[in-house]
Amino acid sequence: MAKTHFGSDNVSGIAPEILDAIARANHGGVDSYGGDDVTASLEKSFGDIFETEVSVLPVGTGTIANCLAVSFVAPPWGAVYCHRDSHIMVDEANGPEFFSGGAKLADLPGDHGRLDPVTVRAAATAFDADDVHHPMRAALSITQATEWGTLYSLDQVRELGTVAGKLGMDFHMDGARFANAIAAMGCTPAELTWKAGVDVLSFGATKNGCLAVEALVVFGAKRKQFGTLRRLHKRAGQLYSKMRFFSTQLDAYLADNNWLSWAGHANAQAKRLSEGLCEADGVDLLHPVEANEIFLSLPESVFIAMQATGFGFYPIASAGDGTGTIRLVTAFDTDPADVETLIAAAKG
Amino acid sequence: MAKTHFGSDNVSGIAPEILDAIARANHGGVDSYGGDDVTASLEKSFGDIFETEVSVLPVGTGTIANCLAVSFVAPPWGAVYCHRDSHIMVDEANGPEFFSGGAKLADLPGDHGRLDPVTVRAAATAFDADDVHHPMRAALSITQATEWGTLYSLDQVRELGTVAGKLGMDFHMDGARFANAIAAMGCTPAELTWKAGVDVLSFGATKNGCLAVEALVVFGAKRKQFGTLRRLHKRAGQLYSKMRFFSTQLDAYLADNNWLSWAGHANAQAKRLSEGLCEADGVDLLHPVEANEIFLSLPESVFIAMQATGFGFYPIASAGDGTGTIRLVTAFDTDPADVETLIAAAKG
Amino acid sequence: MAKTHFGSDNVSGIAPEILDAIARANHGGVDSYGGDDVTASLEKSFGDIFETEVSVLPVGTGTIANCLAVSFVAPPWGAVYCHRDSHIMVDEANGPEFFSGGAKLADLPGDHGRLDPVTVRAAATAFDADDVHHPMRAALSITQATEWGTLYSLDQVRELGTVAGKLGMDFHMDGARFANAIAAMGCTPAELTWKAGVDVLSFGATKNGCLAVEALVVFGAKRKQFGTLRRLHKRAGQLYSKMRFFSTQLDAYLADNNWLSWAGHANAQAKRLSEGLCEADGVDLLHPVEANEIFLSLPESVFIAMQATGFGFYPIASAGDGTGTIRLVTAFDTDPADVETLIAAAKG
Amino acid sequence: MAKTHFGSDNVSGIAPEILDAIARANHGGVDSYGGDDVTASLEKSFGDIFETEVSVLPVGTGTIANCLAVSFVAPPWGAVYCHRDSHIMVDEANGPEFFSGGAKLADLPGDHGRLDPVTVRAAATAFDADDVHHPMRAALSITQATEWGTLYSLDQVRELGTVAGKLGMDFHMDGARFANAIAAMGCTPAELTWKAGVDVLSFGATKNGCLAVEALVVFGAKRKQFGTLRRLHKRAGQLYSKMRFFSTQLDAYLADNNWLSWAGHANAQAKRLSEGLCEADGVDLLHPVEANEIFLSLPESVFIAMQATGFGFYPIASAGDGTGTIRLVTAFDTDPADVETLIAAAKG
Repeated sequence: MAKTHFGSDNVSGIAPEILDAIARANHGGVDSYGGDDVTASLEKSFGDIFETEVSVLPVGTGTIANCLAVSFVAPPWGAVYCHRDSHIMVDEANGPEFFSGGAKLADLPGDHGRLDPVTVRAAATAFDADDVHHPMRAALSITQATEWGTLYSLDQVRELGTVAGKLGMDFHMDGARFANAIAAMGCTPAELTWKAGVDVLSFGATKNGCLAVEALVVFGAKRKQFGTLRRLHKRAGQLYSKMRFFSTQLDAYLADNNWLSWAGHANAQAKRLSEGLCEADGVDLLHPVEANEIFLSLPESVFIAMQATGFGFYPIASAGDGTGTIRLVTAFDTDPADVETLIAAAKG
Repeated sequence: MAKTHFGSDNVSGIAPEILDAIARANHGGVDSYGGDDVTASLEKSFGDIFETEVSVLPVGTGTIANCLAVSFVAPPWGAVYCHRDSHIMVDEANGPEFFSGGAKLADLPGDHGRLDPVTVRAAATAFDADDVHHPMRAALSITQATEWGTLYSLDQVRELGTVAGKLGMDFHMDGARFANAIAAMGCTPAELTWKAGVDVLSFGATKNGCLAVEALVVFGAKRKQFGTLRRLHKRAGQLYSKMRFFSTQLDAYLADNNWLSWAGHANAQAKRLSEGLCEADGVDLLHPVEANEIFLSLPESVFIAMQATGFGFYPIASAGDGTGTIRLVTAFDTDPADVETLIAAAKG
Repeated sequence: MAKTHFGSDNVSGIAPEILDAIARANHGGVDSYGGDDVTASLEKSFGDIFETEVSVLPVGTGTIANCLAVSFVAPPWGAVYCHRDSHIMVDEANGPEFFSGGAKLADLPGDHGRLDPVTVRAAATAFDADDVHHPMRAALSITQATEWGTLYSLDQVRELGTVAGKLGMDFHMDGARFANAIAAMGCTPAELTWKAGVDVLSFGATKNGCLAVEALVVFGAKRKQFGTLRRLHKRAGQLYSKMRFFSTQLDAYLADNNWLSWAGHANAQAKRLSEGLCEADGVDLLHPVEANEIFLSLPESVFIAMQATGFGFYPIASAGDGTGTIRLVTAFDTDPADVETLIAAAKG
Repeated sequence: MAKTHFGSDNVSGIAPEILDAIARANHGGVDSYGGDDVTASLEKSFGDIFETEVSVLPVGTGTIANCLAVSFVAPPWGAVYCHRDSHIMVDEANGPEFFSGGAKLADLPGDHGRLDPVTVRAAATAFDADDVHHPMRAALSITQATEWGTLYSLDQVRELGTVAGKLGMDFHMDGARFANAIAAMGCTPAELTWKAGVDVLSFGATKNGCLAVEALVVFGAKRKQFGTLRRLHKRAGQLYSKMRFFSTQLDAYLADNNWLSWAGHANAQAKRLSEGLCEADGVDLLHPVEANEIFLSLPESVFIAMQATGFGFYPIASAGDGTGTIRLVTAFDTDPADVETLIAAAKG
């Protein structure tokens, strides 16, 4: 029995197009460890999407994508500037520090999950970069869409890219929900990444319809160091023997504009859901809803009414005064009828 | 078009039962990161197979299974005794050293890929275990079936387990082809593991019909440290958000005796193939064929004749004198007719 | 020619008592790597000072003392709560992250270099300690005297110790200037450490008259893990072959109340110097002077007048408006006459 | 009371010239962390000795010299080829693996502690250097004088340097007893190092009269990466605040040919001692005595007679048949009269 779950987008299943692609790739024997045709074609597919030559490696989770990206952009004695609520900071079990051999994640504040150039520049220039006592500024990492469901504007990304570039830092984008960002912004993938100064992208796909696959995408001059990333990737256990079944997910994801269609659907459901819920008494947005995540404060009674729908949720964070906060997330497969049902329940 | 490939068992595809299980698990939203029912049931399923309580974590590759296992059984200043040709020694890009924070893989010789207790004991007692200058003996790791397609007898495993236990070392088994070993030996999984002293098993499944999944299985007193393994597992990016699709592979693999049926088929094909090929002039076994791998020396002309079948092979290691050595591997899906075709081609 | 230098206390030389002790230890051959009598007696000497059984290891620098301490109190997936200006956070080239295998230094704000219990508790309880996604709270680290020359009161240390204890965290004290703290506070070393909940102390000695030596001092139940610290210590290259020459420094340092006499002298000179300088126009303290460090804002003209004395200083941090900030530090060998000369110069 | 100890050269004390230099450096305040004049002059001093421009960093122990050297010449996924009895392999508590982030020490056999070019080449070419599965050949490390008291000839070093260079590997020399080697060989330091292809030298001084200091010396093109070594050095806690007291040891060590005079003395005593002892019944050399170490097999009765002199020894390794093996080491301060006393005692 299908069950709709609003707790996260990673509670969703596999899009039929992805599962079909896996099944189609399941024919006879092919060279393992990425020696197959689909893997060989990935850089072409991604290059078409990003309108430039890119280097690409598929990985199995967003955690490892971020861990490898951090270790690729920062030496062990380096500092990576990031938002204090970023996934690399608080949700990866210290993996970025471990994989990089000790790089420091220097966490910075910022409204609605966004870093601003002034804060980044101040932090990154607090120490002389040549003084061996201090963490050496190495990279800037931002998340787009952010952990609070918001978006950096294209100009904001460009400004951050300029700061990073002027200070000699690499620029990493955690794009666990990159598709949602592109679908919402209407800009090109090229504009949001390398044209804005991004060197390395964690390109998410799992949350948006795949079984389990993300891609590390490397742009421009950083590609010269791709040999190092390949060693990091293998050492991390990410060189899947039956790589074809991961590459084919990415292939089908990019095909036929699937990735943007699915993300656009999720975004639209989030927009409708947030607007509908805000009509209920006592429900307020904690952050603007700009992609597929909704952060709300609400009466606990409203949450109880929402739970009565039978849909899935993660627990409310109670404030102890009859109200609380929750996150709701929509996905590629969120049924609009369920959204309406949920809104109706909340409005009582 | 299906193509038979004798280069490895990881060139094979996904068994229909496994792909069906993935498709069946693809229904609606379920809690992510292992909060699903199938993942919850894994310890019961493995416990039934191993006739004892076990702790289990699914992972995506054999590389990471081994890396996490090594880091679980050895402190950074420890030594892990292993065969000089073992996967953890030469095929994991120094992952075991990295994940363990610097543990030393102390490689030992041994005929046909097998370690013997005398060699292990001598190496492990070469240094005073309390002397902080030297690597501290920490663990013994063996591969079953071995990297050379051979098997340790049950008595040999038990003797090694006794040596490890007496010296206070953990005992790890790399079971990338554990199914092939059990299918060939006729003993129980319990007998080959915890009853023989094994503390941690890398339980392979990918090579034997799965898409991509292995399991870390922890036995006995070592289970008390399972909380540490869970941290290592998450930090390595192995806590898949859509874990259900990995757990369901293991579930279907163990169901209906699939894993042993498939491995038994592969073993039988290897036996037939090796016997047939040895009838060709100049073809000799380099190691006994006891599981699903065949290591041969043969005239290059024979290899050329084999290639003419159109089947897949990895390149021959030429000796420069008109002969060479190759590895052939059979899998769960190797067609017996192809085996006969190959034998006929070799015999000319 | 002797030259007085107010830039730091580590610009000072070696106290005659320490150099004499090194010379006295220089007789014939003794067992290396700490197998000498003086090293053997250290735990007794420290035990007398701290009024309890302790485990002690000499090391060569404050950096490594802190790095080993952090790696001793936190697993790689742990979080160590510390002040954002603490040495372990900003002055050790990411050594704490490296030696611990990736532990996160979670930096917190606090007036005048001091952490407060409310901030610590809030940070340490922000995540469920059992959730493998997040850094696991592991330890609290404070510096006494602080990096800004201030002191935690005994009650403040006790409160922090209580927070750490209740949350199951180890409690580390960076005592690079521990002697200055004890000399200023009038409490016992026992009261300031284990009686207040401290598990591990980086006990400084270099800045206060030694050539190069600090001690890692372990208290109470944490001593059960001392075997691990011995491995960390050797692996870090801190098991000096001629250990006697390090141990004898500590021995002479503790003898005859030297350590407290010297620190008391430094503190008194800082008090007089700060009071005198504040009589100059435009000179203000940035932090209370509670040990041997003085942080000032002052007119650049005053600084130029101070430089004209010929004494050593590190550069002023100019504010660009004719004023700036500097740090002045006194040491065991600061000549009171030089202090008066400097005050007179500043007052013009 | 002076006591002669034949157990090692690191049981010896400090040469008067070294202690005097420390005392002379003990004047007033000087910039810390290597900002002093003596440290500034070190590269000139070493450059004179090595007849080329060099980059130099003082460190406190041979362990850390080797750990930093290994981490400087090998990436985490690299292999460092070394002798199976080498210090970096068995005596550094896995420090080389730890500091390098997981590099593999690939241990090789070799008579009398020496590697030969054929063995090195075979091991280093066993795997395709571009294949990400395998350890990537990165560096060759040899010890001169070796751990068994023998020497590589200049030609042997050159041949190994040629192998390393042709295979694109860095070449590290562990020169814990480099002075003994130069004193015995009569070649120049330049000939034995960079002219023979050595990129990085662990230059020992502690065993030969210093309190505690070694130098990392970097030659040729490898100097371009010296900035990385400075980060590694600081992070390891090796940037001593009172660096002048370490640098001055090296300065006095190189002055007046002290280092070679002292090593020459030690070598001569070893030669005389070994020749004398071999006149005793049942005493045999296990390795040629080419520097200042002697490895003997001898009747336990002879060892007991030697112990009756009251000199210091480390325990004999008993063979269980009334014989055993021991190591004897002479140093810069070994009294020739004591050598004669020991010989006489052994001869009974």
